[in-house]
Amino acid sequence: MAKVAILMGSKSDFGAVKPAVTVLKSFGVETVVRVISAHRTPDEAHEFSVNAQKEGYEVIICAAGKAAHLGGVIAAYTALPVIGLPVKTDMMGGLDSLLSIVQMPAGIPVATVGVNGGENAGLLALQILGIKYPEISAALYEYKSKMKEKINNDDAALQNELEQL
Amino acid sequence: MAKVAILMGSKSDFGAVKPAVTVLKSFGVETVVRVISAHRTPDEAHEFSVNAQKEGYEVIICAAGKAAHLGGVIAAYTALPVIGLPVKTDMMGGLDSLLSIVQMPAGIPVATVGVNGGENAGLLALQILGIKYPEISAALYEYKSKMKEKINNDDAALQNELEQL
Amino acid sequence: MAKVAILMGSKSDFGAVKPAVTVLKSFGVETVVRVISAHRTPDEAHEFSVNAQKEGYEVIICAAGKAAHLGGVIAAYTALPVIGLPVKTDMMGGLDSLLSIVQMPAGIPVATVGVNGGENAGLLALQILGIKYPEISAALYEYKSKMKEKINNDDAALQNELEQL
Amino acid sequence: MAKVAILMGSKSDFGAVKPAVTVLKSFGVETVVRVISAHRTPDEAHEFSVNAQKEGYEVIICAAGKAAHLGGVIAAYTALPVIGLPVKTDMMGGLDSLLSIVQMPAGIPVATVGVNGGENAGLLALQILGIKYPEISAALYEYKSKMKEKINNDDAALQNELEQL
Amino acid sequence: MAKVAILMGSKSDFGAVKPAVTVLKSFGVETVVRVISAHRTPDEAHEFSVNAQKEGYEVIICAAGKAAHLGGVIAAYTALPVIGLPVKTDMMGGLDSLLSIVQMPAGIPVATVGVNGGENAGLLALQILGIKYPEISAALYEYKSKMKEKINNDDAALQNELEQL
Amino acid sequence: MAKVAILMGSKSDFGAVKPAVTVLKSFGVETVVRVISAHRTPDEAHEFSVNAQKEGYEVIICAAGKAAHLGGVIAAYTALPVIGLPVKTDMMGGLDSLLSIVQMPAGIPVATVGVNGGENAGLLALQILGIKYPEISAALYEYKSKMKEKINNDDAALQNELEQL
Amino acid sequence: MAKVAILMGSKSDFGAVKPAVTVLKSFGVETVVRVISAHRTPDEAHEFSVNAQKEGYEVIICAAGKAAHLGGVIAAYTALPVIGLPVKTDMMGGLDSLLSIVQMPAGIPVATVGVNGGENAGLLALQILGIKYPEISAALYEYKSKMKEKINNDDAALQNELEQL
Amino acid sequence: MAKVAILMGSKSDFGAVKPAVTVLKSFGVETVVRVISAHRTPDEAHEFSVNAQKEGYEVIICAAGKAAHLGGVIAAYTALPVIGLPVKTDMMGGLDSLLSIVQMPAGIPVATVGVNGGENAGLLALQILGIKYPEISAALYEYKSKMKEKINNDDAALQNELEQL
Repeated sequence: MAKVAILMGSKSDFGAVKPAVTVLKSFGVETVVRVISAHRTPDEAHEFSVNAQKEGYEVIICAAGKAAHLGGVIAAYTALPVIGLPVKTDMMGGLDSLLSIVQMPAGIPVATVGVNGGENAGLLALQILGIKYPEISAALYEYKSKMKEKINNDDAALQNELEQL
Repeated sequence: MAKVAILMGSKSDFGAVKPAVTVLKSFGVETVVRVISAHRTPDEAHEFSVNAQKEGYEVIICAAGKAAHLGGVIAAYTALPVIGLPVKTDMMGGLDSLLSIVQMPAGIPVATVGVNGGENAGLLALQILGIKYPEISAALYEYKSKMKEKINNDDAALQNELEQL
Repeated sequence: MAKVAILMGSKSDFGAVKPAVTVLKSFGVETVVRVISAHRTPDEAHEFSVNAQKEGYEVIICAAGKAAHLGGVIAAYTALPVIGLPVKTDMMGGLDSLLSIVQMPAGIPVATVGVNGGENAGLLALQILGIKYPEISAALYEYKSKMKEKINNDDAALQNELEQL
Repeated sequence: MAKVAILMGSKSDFGAVKPAVTVLKSFGVETVVRVISAHRTPDEAHEFSVNAQKEGYEVIICAAGKAAHLGGVIAAYTALPVIGLPVKTDMMGGLDSLLSIVQMPAGIPVATVGVNGGENAGLLALQILGIKYPEISAALYEYKSKMKEKINNDDAALQNELEQL
Repeated sequence: MAKVAILMGSKSDFGAVKPAVTVLKSFGVETVVRVISAHRTPDEAHEFSVNAQKEGYEVIICAAGKAAHLGGVIAAYTALPVIGLPVKTDMMGGLDSLLSIVQMPAGIPVATVGVNGGENAGLLALQILGIKYPEISAALYEYKSKMKEKINNDDAALQNELEQL
Repeated sequence: MAKVAILMGSKSDFGAVKPAVTVLKSFGVETVVRVISAHRTPDEAHEFSVNAQKEGYEVIICAAGKAAHLGGVIAAYTALPVIGLPVKTDMMGGLDSLLSIVQMPAGIPVATVGVNGGENAGLLALQILGIKYPEISAALYEYKSKMKEKINNDDAALQNELEQL
Repeated sequence: MAKVAILMGSKSDFGAVKPAVTVLKSFGVETVVRVISAHRTPDEAHEFSVNAQKEGYEVIICAAGKAAHLGGVIAAYTALPVIGLPVKTDMMGGLDSLLSIVQMPAGIPVATVGVNGGENAGLLALQILGIKYPEISAALYEYKSKMKEKINNDDAALQNELEQL
Repeated sequence: MAKVAILMGSKSDFGAVKPAVTVLKSFGVETVVRVISAHRTPDEAHEFSVNAQKEGYEVIICAAGKAAHLGGVIAAYTALPVIGLPVKTDMMGGLDSLLSIVQMPAGIPVATVGVNGGENAGLLALQILGIKYPEISAALYEYKSKMKEKINNDDAALQNELEQL
């Protein structure tokens, strides 16, 4: 069974992380959530990175804000795909978090999603798992269908509302 | 055997794409490179997206610059992981490409690497494949070792150079 | 009679779109509003773009936020003028939406108005229609007169208020 | 016959303007190019704006850089559609020009294209004219076909080149 | 007696303008405040600019937000010093207003103060007047003394507060 | 006779300063140019600021780049108008210099011109002097006429060039 | 015993400064807090800078917002390390303060911490003092342990909370 | 005797680092330069950070570009002051490097200097050392004198050059 880790640099990032947890769990993926800081608990970060693969994780999501080093630090030891989730800050809406995560030097990629893009971080993890687990891939196409249906329903509802104006 | 597609919006993006091709081929991954534009060849983009999975692709890399819509358009129909590679422009060093790719709305993630981060796009594809193909995962750890060795050699060389100053 | 379409990527964009609807309807232009997403309902977007001209639309307004691809996707198949309306986000006040819309590659323009510039999107549609429909053009000059009158009234009111200070 | 004006704030902007002239002339549109400055020849700008419609212009393209006020100033008196073409500068790749043009206050839209997007300014003018002149609309679909063909040819050429590597 | 004009593009800018009015009136300078829009009342703007000097104005302050063209438009006809006051917007805290005002092309300067810097706009006008009216210059040195005194008092008060912690 | 000081933080800023010197001298204004650094020669900066008015200066232009503090430091002691000239840097085309100069706290304005706007710094000084010296004001209107003539000539030349294409 | 000065340009900056005071006092460091403005009380700034070292200060923290010159001005006369603390503003979340402080010209460094990074300013002062005072260095390692413990406790608490969901 | 380490993430950063080496050596400080990457040689980074203090280092300078994590990673284990030197990149002149370094979360400061501010990184290290080593402090005041002298000489030379124009 697929297993994903979600790490965040501070417990206060949990709000940004929650949509990732929700979507992963709704797909039946085992999801472990941890508070691990690249700078304040570097030993835990190191240990997690070194052991992630043998502990059965297949994708790691790292959420952090400001000078967001967590993704890079976790990617140092593991060859698992690491997804970076930039947390919104006051600095231009999280541009600091975004650039600190996405602009990784050659050799150590971090797969970055948009600022506060927790749901997308979860979905990206699912897409990655989907290349190995056909049932996850199939479920993602269903998810797409539901999104489509929701937009179509919104469109129909809007037509009703506009008529009544 | 693993198979990756690399799409670019314009043939002039090939310079940014080449490091991805190189690293993927050096890992023995079948790599198909295509010029497909979200706006100028929308039928080809649509067809590619719809058929990608059944044609055996497992990861898709999309390189584009400025209002870079290719990744999002390709991600519309497929549940395969889509990696977005922002191409450098004159607008603040590619901030337009980066934001157009990474800030995807909820539901349709694009795994974004840094501006002109071709090598990292390739490596991220490999990390994703690595969760399914153990030999790719193993080769990535070797790649990490070589990077480490290179840095250590650079460090040693620097000591020599500094002594001779 | 003139006919304009207003598309938005998500029903939550309706607040930004409403001033466009209002101004178009006040000029007596038939205005169809749709929720169509470039990524979540790509078939609907494709179909809309392909058929827009033969269904009698003459201008299309596309509102979207963040990585705002809707305008570009709609512009792919039609030669009708497409107006892009960037929706405000947390990322530097909508700079992500703006750049994703305005920085289109050569060949596929999107006529962009300011962030949350719904009224201007509507007025731009009217100016475009005005080159074909003289009565719309004439009404626009009246609109200009009223704006002028309002500013002049504001100026007069201010003089009164300042005197009473 | 359709007639378009292209104004630029300084003769040094002609490089950015030229692709617009070229594309408009290739579609057989009468194209008048003028050097008119909002600040240095305000009378000429005023006179142009007031008389544009009666002199037969149907679209006006305004190119300017830095604090680029030309589009707004020309849009003050005319109800014709005004296209703003931001010219690249040293300030973040033309962000100053872009914001000065696109962020127009409610009531006076300027249809903005990307920085140095001369070809797109011309094509946008053609799309606008196309709603009145069916032959221009038809020619734009042909233009789209040629763009598509060129991308497909580039794609085919790339396959050849890659094989020979 | 010295006379200053303060123009604003919209009555809603009065909040940003008020500190300028207050400081100018506290120095006994005749201060006329007008709502004049570069785009919505271009005739009034033109007339004001052409006649400002002969009507006895010596400095003109222009407040505007977003694509803030008012300062440039007023500076077109007059050789009086024009002070640009950028009004805060949602776009990166008023960067659009600032760049639209300060980045004027060679030949037509606008003396720009900080975003929402109403008091500084008034003080700059006073400094300019001070080179002609010695009593204003003298009053400015008194103003400086009072600012100094206030800071020193704040410093003393802080020491008390800190002691009591 | 009018007298202006131009200070620069480093002799390497002279290229940015030169157009100010040229325009001021062409108007017959006594122009003193000094290399004075807010940080490296703070005593000289202090002395200059304290004595500027009694030594007959009427306007002070301060050119500096990066964290450009010179204008603010000079404005600390004098009530003369201080013009800030931001020098271009690698940081987003001089945004650092611009913000460091223009965003002055309430109480101490610096009249800022565009990045590398040396000619405008000189012209702004002349406009300020013009409120006291009618002959400078008159000369500025002549300067405006010549700019207008040059643009008109450029426009005429362009017509010729376009005809010959 | 170690002694640190914390200067702020305005008493309203005290909120940003307070975490620095708190952390310094909790380490038993003598901490003097002053309101001194580079522009409004330049004599006090000058005097402070000239005398800081002989009055026993070893590190100086300077907090300021917008065009934040205080750090640079204080660094002009003293060779003590000066820490710059940028205060958040409306301009892109304090980018103006940050660039005005960090981008110092060669020769006069200001050790800059993040926007509103008061605690880090205090900790940096302690790290600097720690190279001279071994007991401060030792206390900093304890501080690190407590941070680590807190993160570990947060992690444990999160596990409990997640279980109960 | 004082001892400083300068770490860089890649040997290609040596150009940015060299001015720091030069200034430190000119003050007689033992300076060790190392190529250590937070991501490619994480063990070396860890080991360096853990042992820095006991190996006699008193200040550590970390130079890195793009998502520049080196300073934060080194600061994780040591309580020594860590100076961050952002290396210029194509992304807005190094804004990515700057934000990745300066915006550190509370608890782990990195003393940041300007982009490519190698000389200032060295001087800041010297100012820090100066609080312990009086001879370094004294030498810094001499350095200040020489800078002052240079500026004064530049000023005198400029006067000569201007006379000869």
